Amino acid sequence: MLSSLMTSHDRVRVFALGGVAEIGKNMLAVECGEDLLLVDCGVRFPEEDLLGIDLVIPDIGHIIENRARLRAILLTHGHEDHIGSLPYILPQLEDVRPPIYGTRLTLGLVRTKLKEFKLESWPQIELQPGTRVIVGALQIEPFRVAHSIPDGVGFALHTPAGVIVHTGDFKLDQTPVDGRPTDVAKLAELGHRGVLLLLCDCTRVESPGYTPSERSLYDSFDTVFANAGGRLIFTTFASNISRIQQILDTAYRFERQVAVVGRSMENNVAVARELGYLDVPERTLVRPDDLGKLPSKQAVFITTGSQGEPTSVLSRIASNDHRLIRLQPGDTVVLSGTPVPGNELAVDRTINNLVRRGAEVIYNALMPVHVSGHAAQEELKLVLNLVRPRYLIPVHGEPRHQVRLRRVAQEVGLPPDHVFILENGDVVEMDAQGARRAGAVASGSVLVDGLMVGDISSVVLRDRRHLSRDGFVLVSVAVDKHTGGPLAEPDIVSRGFVAATDGLFADARRIVRETIQAQAPVEVETAFLSTKIREALARFLYEQTRGRPMILPIITEV
Amino acid sequence: MLSSLMTSHDRVRVFALGGVAEIGKNMLAVECGEDLLLVDCGVRFPEEDLLGIDLVIPDIGHIIENRARLRAILLTHGHEDHIGSLPYILPQLEDVRPPIYGTRLTLGLVRTKLKEFKLESWPQIELQPGTRVIVGALQIEPFRVAHSIPDGVGFALHTPAGVIVHTGDFKLDQTPVDGRPTDVAKLAELGHRGVLLLLCDCTRVESPGYTPSERSLYDSFDTVFANAGGRLIFTTFASNISRIQQILDTAYRFERQVAVVGRSMENNVAVARELGYLDVPERTLVRPDDLGKLPSKQAVFITTGSQGEPTSVLSRIASNDHRLIRLQPGDTVVLSGTPVPGNELAVDRTINNLVRRGAEVIYNALMPVHVSGHAAQEELKLVLNLVRPRYLIPVHGEPRHQVRLRRVAQEVGLPPDHVFILENGDVVEMDAQGARRAGAVASGSVLVDGLMVGDISSVVLRDRRHLSRDGFVLVSVAVDKHTGGPLAEPDIVSRGFVAATDGLFADARRIVRETIQAQAPVEVETAFLSTKIREALARFLYEQTRGRPMILPIITEV
Repeated sequence: MLSSLMTSHDRVRVFALGGVAEIGKNMLAVECGEDLLLVDCGVRFPEEDLLGIDLVIPDIGHIIENRARLRAILLTHGHEDHIGSLPYILPQLEDVRPPIYGTRLTLGLVRTKLKEFKLESWPQIELQPGTRVIVGALQIEPFRVAHSIPDGVGFALHTPAGVIVHTGDFKLDQTPVDGRPTDVAKLAELGHRGVLLLLCDCTRVESPGYTPSERSLYDSFDTVFANAGGRLIFTTFASNISRIQQILDTAYRFERQVAVVGRSMENNVAVARELGYLDVPERTLVRPDDLGKLPSKQAVFITTGSQGEPTSVLSRIASNDHRLIRLQPGDTVVLSGTPVPGNELAVDRTINNLVRRGAEVIYNALMPVHVSGHAAQEELKLVLNLVRPRYLIPVHGEPRHQVRLRRVAQEVGLPPDHVFILENGDVVEMDAQGARRAGAVASGSVLVDGLMVGDISSVVLRDRRHLSRDGFVLVSVAVDKHTGGPLAEPDIVSRGFVAATDGLFADARRIVRETIQAQAPVEVETAFLSTKIREALARFLYEQTRGRPMILPIITEV
Repeated sequence: MLSSLMTSHDRVRVFALGGVAEIGKNMLAVECGEDLLLVDCGVRFPEEDLLGIDLVIPDIGHIIENRARLRAILLTHGHEDHIGSLPYILPQLEDVRPPIYGTRLTLGLVRTKLKEFKLESWPQIELQPGTRVIVGALQIEPFRVAHSIPDGVGFALHTPAGVIVHTGDFKLDQTPVDGRPTDVAKLAELGHRGVLLLLCDCTRVESPGYTPSERSLYDSFDTVFANAGGRLIFTTFASNISRIQQILDTAYRFERQVAVVGRSMENNVAVARELGYLDVPERTLVRPDDLGKLPSKQAVFITTGSQGEPTSVLSRIASNDHRLIRLQPGDTVVLSGTPVPGNELAVDRTINNLVRRGAEVIYNALMPVHVSGHAAQEELKLVLNLVRPRYLIPVHGEPRHQVRLRRVAQEVGLPPDHVFILENGDVVEMDAQGARRAGAVASGSVLVDGLMVGDISSVVLRDRRHLSRDGFVLVSVAVDKHTGGPLAEPDIVSRGFVAATDGLFADARRIVRETIQAQAPVEVETAFLSTKIREALARFLYEQTRGRPMILPIITEV
């Protein structure tokens, strides 16, 4: 690990603790002399081989060591992959309590979260796009970006080594639903004055052209409303306030009423409405119970479940297991979201269950009812041409996206060796001479499983994988302390082992007995005997079944 | 279950035992008087919640009961989801040995499989497209279809109730690599004479327009070869003989040599070549070891692994774990296949690992290097307009695809109530009066886990899911047979349980001890005591960790 003594006042170090070489758990660190700040504090949902794990958050060991210098946590916007790990990370910073900087809606969403974890008194500072704030030796200049949640910003960090621009998650939507497009003029101005480093969202770099505007969905929604013979059930991300606005607007024009169902969505709608980010047309939003009393042709539900999450409202509706909403013939379900990689099968299952119950189901393969919140290739090129950075770090992307943005940057004239393809922890150091790689700080994934945060050993996960495939076989045996001989018939219990039959286990008991007898008469060495039993039984069970259950001998000496 | 007595000679019953309301394990049954025949005999790969399961095959209980009438197993083509369950199903039909009917290449691929399971003497009858064969009271007329494997056919079944047309898997590729397009003229002729029922592939009905021709890939391959500075590594499905042909052709033109690596692909190439379905240009195909000796610019590998399978050649290359192929800077890897739903993350991981090792990786998101083997909407409309069936059963699709084909059929004039949306087992009965639903036969999924086929209880799978999330905690305790008191400190062992610490387990032991003491002094009822311990421990561990491990008390009375 690099010591903080290495930094000097005109040298800036940038590294990610999450969000490079991966999509999710975004966390960027900027070190400048005696000042350290973080941009974003996100979670990632566990991949399928992290069995039983609830969440993945960044390892902030390096930040904790250097927390005396931590001046600020800047937030770009209110999505979980940018704010979700705050409740787990703030308690480790209790003695320094660095303020959280964010725009109004972002802080509103953060507050709900902090309240739940009894952290609501944490210092928070509201950012106004266009107004600089001073943090240590740095000036922080937030600028508007359009994304799939309102009130998103990117940052220009004015450092002694030069200007660092961080796009946050963005697209160049010229007609966003909230009327606040990405501040392209600011990017041009920054570019004109000179930008040392650009940290750029590369999630959608594989898509050619431009990402469609959120507003383009109004046309599809009109078609959907015009053709719906019964109730309408929309599902989208709980944080997609713009999408909810569009559904409300369309419902109002078609003289339908809307109810929001699902805790996370209800919370977000309440926050957004209270802070003025959701403009609810008169008498359009009602309580779910009241909506049930209206004729089908007048009802619209907005629910969670666009990712097929098994406990979401939509999954419950699809399995006819929701308290309030039972599908009726003629109902139309609109999936206004696309599956995040890994959720395809769950979404597919939800669609099929809805179809089986007779619903008309509309999703992107059939009609454009969702657009991405990230910039596509031509937008990225435009930003690169405006900002004209000396160096580039692709963020918010996997290696495939990072190298693709390097390719795109090369097309607009940036030399490939001015693009840093980073793994989490990799440090880029900048000063008047330029930028270069400078080792790495400790980084990694911290797993959250129930109340356990971190301290989850790889052995536990390996054992879970083993158990998930073949289960286990338990052999309980009492042996004579003096002769080493078996005192009773061994007892065998299994769980999750496919071939558990009386016949097989009778043979297994015989093998255990013979294994014990082959050792006796000698003084019993339990560990040795345990190994012998495990080996003999593993061989026998594999021969008979081609299965490799976990085998646990429990030897009681009497 | 419907008795065979219900059938009469001019009545035909059709049902699927696999392949409707799902993609995979295709198996269709046609019953006509005293004759029963199957079309296809496929496997499905298990979904992610079938932990530890290797394969899923159809439940053929109904066929076994009626096997005396089983006259034939017809195969449409040589893909696993159409032939893969033969080795598991034939042994159950040993006393009747119905012949397998297939085209030359299909039977060639089947033979490799039968040999492995010592079933090679099973009767096989080679089909010639265009030549009818008589099976009982039926005439079977195979006709050519183009798909992503050569020598595919569909069937016209001439029955006393009318003609049934089964498309098999197909697309209307006008320029397939083997020069043998789908026999559209035959479809037109059948339509002209009158078709009672069409069973139609609906996998790709959500895609508008036409599926591109296999031949369209030559252009992309030219670009890939022209730009490759080092070795080329292609990956595709092992059965995609046409794709392999295209790679060989392009390699020949660019003066490169090719080696095939991976057992399943080597087998398929050997069979296809021997039977004349692969035309290897002079001196183009060499052994992998010889290829290693050539300059990088002259080498092409074709390997398995387009689905990110962890043990495939490509995954091994990506993790630098392949005996023969180590990635070098300048190598280009082409993924000529798209991920099957459920494999997206595995493919993504492979791509990222290859990129990390410096390979140039090309996949469909960047350049068209794969096309589907299934017909898109306009092709399906054309087939419906040519065949003009009285009734339609969408096959090879999930509910979302089945209802979509009904919609498409409606657009070309077929009334929706003439389209049957089936689940596996649902019977459609046809006679001179028309077609109607007629109950269901037993159907289902049979799971294969190692040597176990079927007999896998849902308890085993439930236990595996439980163990995969939270592991287990084992409590071994010896109690006095007479007083019921604990004889020694309880022993606690856990696997896959996240919060296993000495402190927690010390408390857990205390709780077990107290639970035992609370029951004593009474005569021990082991089952009762076991329940008490399980309950007390579950409550304690949940409070402390929010985890719910499986808890197994082992009580030894002494």
